[in-house]
Amino acid sequence: MMKWWGWGSEDVEFPMHNKPNLWPWICQQLRLDPTARPLKPVPRSAIALPPPVINQDCLGALEKVLRPDQIARSDDERLLHAYGKSYPDLLRVRRGQIDRAPDVVILPEGHADVEAVIREAHRHTVCVIPFGGGTNIVGGVNPLEPSGQMVISLDLRNMHRLLRLDEQSKTATIEAGALGPSLEEDLQRRGYSLGHHPDSFEFSSLGGWLATRSAGMQSDAYGKIEDMVVSLRMVTPSGTLTTRPAPKAATGPDLNQMAVGSEGVLGVITEATMRVHPNPPVRAYHGFLFPSFEEGYSAIYECVASRYPPSLFRLSDAHETELGFQMKGPARGLRGLIEGWLKTYLAGKGYGAPCLMIVGFEGEPEGVKAVRTGAFRILKAHRGFHLGTRVGESWSREKYNLPYLRDVVMDYGVMADVAETSTVWSNVLPLYRAARKTLEDRFRGDGRPFYLGCHISHTYKTGCSLYFTFAAWMTPGKELDEYYRYKRVITEAFVTHGGTLSHHHAVGIEHLDWMEREVTPTGVRALKGMKAALDPKGIMNPGKLIPASAPGAPWERPAME
Amino acid sequence: MMKWWGWGSEDVEFPMHNKPNLWPWICQQLRLDPTARPLKPVPRSAIALPPPVINQDCLGALEKVLRPDQIARSDDERLLHAYGKSYPDLLRVRRGQIDRAPDVVILPEGHADVEAVIREAHRHTVCVIPFGGGTNIVGGVNPLEPSGQMVISLDLRNMHRLLRLDEQSKTATIEAGALGPSLEEDLQRRGYSLGHHPDSFEFSSLGGWLATRSAGMQSDAYGKIEDMVVSLRMVTPSGTLTTRPAPKAATGPDLNQMAVGSEGVLGVITEATMRVHPNPPVRAYHGFLFPSFEEGYSAIYECVASRYPPSLFRLSDAHETELGFQMKGPARGLRGLIEGWLKTYLAGKGYGAPCLMIVGFEGEPEGVKAVRTGAFRILKAHRGFHLGTRVGESWSREKYNLPYLRDVVMDYGVMADVAETSTVWSNVLPLYRAARKTLEDRFRGDGRPFYLGCHISHTYKTGCSLYFTFAAWMTPGKELDEYYRYKRVITEAFVTHGGTLSHHHAVGIEHLDWMEREVTPTGVRALKGMKAALDPKGIMNPGKLIPASAPGAPWERPAME
Repeated sequence: MMKWWGWGSEDVEFPMHNKPNLWPWICQQLRLDPTARPLKPVPRSAIALPPPVINQDCLGALEKVLRPDQIARSDDERLLHAYGKSYPDLLRVRRGQIDRAPDVVILPEGHADVEAVIREAHRHTVCVIPFGGGTNIVGGVNPLEPSGQMVISLDLRNMHRLLRLDEQSKTATIEAGALGPSLEEDLQRRGYSLGHHPDSFEFSSLGGWLATRSAGMQSDAYGKIEDMVVSLRMVTPSGTLTTRPAPKAATGPDLNQMAVGSEGVLGVITEATMRVHPNPPVRAYHGFLFPSFEEGYSAIYECVASRYPPSLFRLSDAHETELGFQMKGPARGLRGLIEGWLKTYLAGKGYGAPCLMIVGFEGEPEGVKAVRTGAFRILKAHRGFHLGTRVGESWSREKYNLPYLRDVVMDYGVMADVAETSTVWSNVLPLYRAARKTLEDRFRGDGRPFYLGCHISHTYKTGCSLYFTFAAWMTPGKELDEYYRYKRVITEAFVTHGGTLSHHHAVGIEHLDWMEREVTPTGVRALKGMKAALDPKGIMNPGKLIPASAPGAPWERPAME
Repeated sequence: MMKWWGWGSEDVEFPMHNKPNLWPWICQQLRLDPTARPLKPVPRSAIALPPPVINQDCLGALEKVLRPDQIARSDDERLLHAYGKSYPDLLRVRRGQIDRAPDVVILPEGHADVEAVIREAHRHTVCVIPFGGGTNIVGGVNPLEPSGQMVISLDLRNMHRLLRLDEQSKTATIEAGALGPSLEEDLQRRGYSLGHHPDSFEFSSLGGWLATRSAGMQSDAYGKIEDMVVSLRMVTPSGTLTTRPAPKAATGPDLNQMAVGSEGVLGVITEATMRVHPNPPVRAYHGFLFPSFEEGYSAIYECVASRYPPSLFRLSDAHETELGFQMKGPARGLRGLIEGWLKTYLAGKGYGAPCLMIVGFEGEPEGVKAVRTGAFRILKAHRGFHLGTRVGESWSREKYNLPYLRDVVMDYGVMADVAETSTVWSNVLPLYRAARKTLEDRFRGDGRPFYLGCHISHTYKTGCSLYFTFAAWMTPGKELDEYYRYKRVITEAFVTHGGTLSHHHAVGIEHLDWMEREVTPTGVRALKGMKAALDPKGIMNPGKLIPASAPGAPWERPAME
């Protein structure tokens, strides 16, 4: 389990020691006082949880079907399940503000346990929030305001078995609670890989990936999680949905694609049969510098349209590239000299504010070689300056560390958050510029120093994702108001300028207000129809994904009249 | 429009003249009497349609918003919209049995027209059946038993415009009524192609493809229709669903994938933004012979797993290959001699009952060359005997002709039908053998001469489709009973042995009885939930796709109690 107050394991911190330039640079950018006393999270002992709401009938029924150690009622467990890992989550938990925690944490050990829990919860009208790794950053695992009902956090951490591997069909049936590392270890021991590596990989689960339409870093090669799913089982209050393990079908709306992205509001995904691939013998990450974001964009665009799509593209804009450079280790002596010369040389060639691209290749040697040759030709034609594999390897080594940095800056009163979207190729640069400018203007208008970086990742034939990271110092006591001011600005920019509300972080509660504009009122009606059919009492993760009916909402209006 | 009594344009017939061996071979296989008098369809003049049910209020309202020529009430139009093109459809229409025809045929000319029609239909509780090209073979466009309500057949044939082409994003927004040829012509004139070529290509529409999850011959290269859709608009009685044109999103269940495959029961798809690609300069089809279906299967399996997936694979079993050979033109003189020698030579090498594979390649020359080299190496390692491009070209030329042959054999009392499924690679051969044996056993048990052939097509990383064609002479007057006997046998075999109910022909009414087993009762509940939300009065294509609630059906049972 992760720390209750921040990202990652209790004993792991952001490795600042080998990045001598980073902290001074951050302090300078955000005008922080490095001598200020860090604002550490309150001690665990200072946190008082609200008393649990217990439905004795339901608890009694569960005690009959589960072992005592599958029903966790300690405050420590309740605290760990009270929040995900968004900035507002961490802000609240660091100051000990636990408005609502689940009342009971249940630990099923298989599909049948989940069926028993949902059956009893439905019978007794008790809320259930599915819980995978707890890394959600849109409020997806948070219990909402007290409703008088008991709330169960259904933690699938003990459901992590590789149930079946069909090597001929290249499919693996895996329990939904499997976290990234254990899932990959089980598969790689048998020579296979799922190839799904989101930033949260170390702490997030298969079920969570499916429920939120997660995207891994190598999605260019293996697809987004929804592209990898062959079939699944989802326990709903109306029974278990089991889809047929077939590559494709013409049997109505795709129920896999109804369960995927359902964020726990329809049911609990207990297992899934996923497309896997032989563990690639070659994995290589190369760095390239481009004179501008536009040139890098054009290079990616051309590669994707060609026969040479690498397995990973990640193009940082000049701002994110600058942050990346500041995270470099010290370079002294000859290496330092060479890097100095290089920088001067590149600046003279028009790379004064360069954009870093990481290009990844996976597969067997012959294939990787062919793809690399083709891709490099295109990248160089777009003035890509090849930095070799050192920067790529360093990126790969550090790729899971950035969330730890947020905990460090939060000690100094800094808000740090991310927002991602996707759009078609013709709209990528206009959307990038519009979102960037709108948020910049707001920060500047507020006279607030800020960091705002962006990268392109997750490419498709018709478009790609844009991933923004932003940070600024918030006024103590006003952090949430100020944060939402900026969060709303960038989300509005996405939705207004033709981007999606989210490319892979999901809706939860944080994006709820835009859902009707995202999917149209008719789309919201469709989601409500699914919900009413599968969860007639509304016990599954209430308040998430589907906006509530306000008076006069389309749901209430007479249809098309 | 197609002939009212059979497949294709009035002036086109199956080209039997250049296939001297075919008709004798068919007569011998099915023990037909070639001298028997053909049982031609009844003359048009002998057909009396049931009198139309007219809802005057609704018609009056429609007359206010549409031009008179958009409201067709002639018996000719009603007849053309009474059936699709399944064997039972043609059997009934050929003998003039029109139990039910739509009462009015409406011809909208744009999205706004469709909205107006659905609004009035909803207001007046009038049924609407969306109609594209009318090629459906599962009963998807047929009005069902008289219900007292007026039935509108909403024919989108005048909605076929290419609305927008975004060359940078490689997306095209097209009206749903566009038939294959006009759609491809519009795109190819601009240098692009959708690359979707189902067997019905000449007469089927984009909207129909989407509503039924159609698969084209080149799906290996470009995906099934559901993989090509970027966004769409669907008019439902509860309003219009408009999805966001983005390559991927994480905003809940995928509503594109709810509309796709919805077979008109949720609403009418009016336009879609589709992924397109530059029109490939090279298109080549090669023929290979394999000594067995198993060897051909292994060759395809290995190609799909490799870096050399061609754009089309079609592997016929020995029976279908024999039919293909009988469709050959006459070979005389030197060519005849060479073919004779070749046949003897191959028979001696173990190709006595060979299996024909068509392999297709599309793209720019360099890419095609690389893929072809790699694929040929694998095919030859599996004892594939390269026949060159002549047989491939002949297949490509004839590929849309087979449905015409059905009309010919129906003149002689023959039932001819197709059934397709899909499964994962490890189950392909077991499912093929089980389905083949079950149907063979039934034909043999009935002492009935038959034809039964199968091909593999539509490959995916995890599996492929199996497509069966079967034919036999039916007892006059008992055709339907006898036909359904065989149809049920093969469908049962699919569902029992791990196949899907349908890979690309959809559910309609013909597969309704298996839907609950296909998607589980919980899946049916989910579909009913969507339907209730979007079409609360049940006016959209009633009786299709979603099985009706029988007393005690899961929908009525208390959930999980």
